[in-house]
Amino acid sequence: MPKSNRGMNKAELFDQIKQKSSFLCVGLDTDLTKIPQHLRKNSDPLFEFNKQIIDATADLAIAYKPNIAFYEALGPKGWESLQKTLEYIPNDIFTIADAKRGDIGNTSSLYAKAFFETMDFDSITVAPYMGVDSVKPFLTFEGKWVILLALTSNEGSLDFQLIASKSGKPLFQEVLEKSQLWGNTDNMMYVVGATRGEKIAEVRQIVPEHFFLVPGVGAQGGSLEEVAKFGMNATCGLLVNSSRGIIYASQEKDFAAAAKVEAMKLQQEMSELLDKYCY
Amino acid sequence: MPKSNRGMNKAELFDQIKQKSSFLCVGLDTDLTKIPQHLRKNSDPLFEFNKQIIDATADLAIAYKPNIAFYEALGPKGWESLQKTLEYIPNDIFTIADAKRGDIGNTSSLYAKAFFETMDFDSITVAPYMGVDSVKPFLTFEGKWVILLALTSNEGSLDFQLIASKSGKPLFQEVLEKSQLWGNTDNMMYVVGATRGEKIAEVRQIVPEHFFLVPGVGAQGGSLEEVAKFGMNATCGLLVNSSRGIIYASQEKDFAAAAKVEAMKLQQEMSELLDKYCY
Repeated sequence: MPKSNRGMNKAELFDQIKQKSSFLCVGLDTDLTKIPQHLRKNSDPLFEFNKQIIDATADLAIAYKPNIAFYEALGPKGWESLQKTLEYIPNDIFTIADAKRGDIGNTSSLYAKAFFETMDFDSITVAPYMGVDSVKPFLTFEGKWVILLALTSNEGSLDFQLIASKSGKPLFQEVLEKSQLWGNTDNMMYVVGATRGEKIAEVRQIVPEHFFLVPGVGAQGGSLEEVAKFGMNATCGLLVNSSRGIIYASQEKDFAAAAKVEAMKLQQEMSELLDKYCY
Repeated sequence: MPKSNRGMNKAELFDQIKQKSSFLCVGLDTDLTKIPQHLRKNSDPLFEFNKQIIDATADLAIAYKPNIAFYEALGPKGWESLQKTLEYIPNDIFTIADAKRGDIGNTSSLYAKAFFETMDFDSITVAPYMGVDSVKPFLTFEGKWVILLALTSNEGSLDFQLIASKSGKPLFQEVLEKSQLWGNTDNMMYVVGATRGEKIAEVRQIVPEHFFLVPGVGAQGGSLEEVAKFGMNATCGLLVNSSRGIIYASQEKDFAAAAKVEAMKLQQEMSELLDKYCY
């Protein structure tokens, strides 16, 4: 296995959070039709956009999360933009391939190779439907993380995730309980939607020590105060993502400066919430 | 939307099955470390291998199913091999992107764009965990199909898919029942694992008219006779996949001829099973 330049355990992640007084993840949902006009003539517009966003927000962000669909939709060229973006992100910032992969064992191993070796992401989001052997291959890579879907924030989360089993447990609880046996707090996080404060509290009770990736703040409508109040633990335990609210704060030439302003607003709120609920 | 050269409804798929007396899907799980030595020096070994497999099996196969992980693991070059493979497959053969994608609505839309527009696959496998809005975007493309994970054949299928809800229904049944309202028999199939005959019968009872993609024959150990006996309906309703058993029948220069022999064995068995259980 090639040596990775990245790799962060839970304690190191919390160190970064303390240094920056932030638990902000910036979602790089970079869409050719939404980036400023003047960048579209560039030879690699997605990378050029991401580069300027990263330059503007790197001192405020703990993590970057490219949404893989946005790159995959462009074919091989999109994967090149993704690779260049990843290489541009400083090594002390956590990187998340938001890919929602998951298949039988030998196939999950190849997805792990794609994101942890061919590319050098710190972590990948994984879907739990196919169970243990679809998740474990991602956990065999030292220093790399699985971020498992537990409770998402979309309308469709009601369809299956909240179905109660005979024992009274909703499916997302089964996922949380079983999967805790597959990994540990240094190689596994959970995706927990931010639209319902009491739900976050419920998840935090089942999984007291793990980090959560919280996608639903901003465009998806969750409240940061609620997320912190119900989800924060003694090592913060939260990475809160904002995508569109930051990267498309302006669609003009000042987009990077505007992104910085929005990221800073969130970081300042996060700094207060760390004081209030964590330290 | 660019005009697709592909597109097949259920009746057309059954026509192909009758013409070829076959319901064989050949899985293109093409692995650089497993293809014959003499091909590895080729400028595009994956495509060269697939091309020869397709030439050898096109009159026996109803569908080809590239397993996307195998291409993704190679970065942008892998996506080029995939694209070339897809373009090489004759238009009257059904194509399946075995990708197990699924995310919130705007992201699923982009995955759909990747596989249905940037590439021109007939269908894609989709994971149901995130519910209705993660699946529906794939169903808005005319002539394209979703193949939804229902009951898989791997060890981990026991973890969540078989959990019984309060109403007594296992999760896979909830998936089958709810998702039938999202699509129809001309744009939706289900992945149904082939390792347990009585389970296939159970699924067929819930979903009498839909096609099933059955992955578990061969290396994963299911019996073709059982699958046909319990799963076949009046329009066949089955695509049975074999990957390793066909494409790695020989790892020498005669690999394509050896693949043809294995495909022919399955096709002959399928022909008899169609006579016995379908026509």
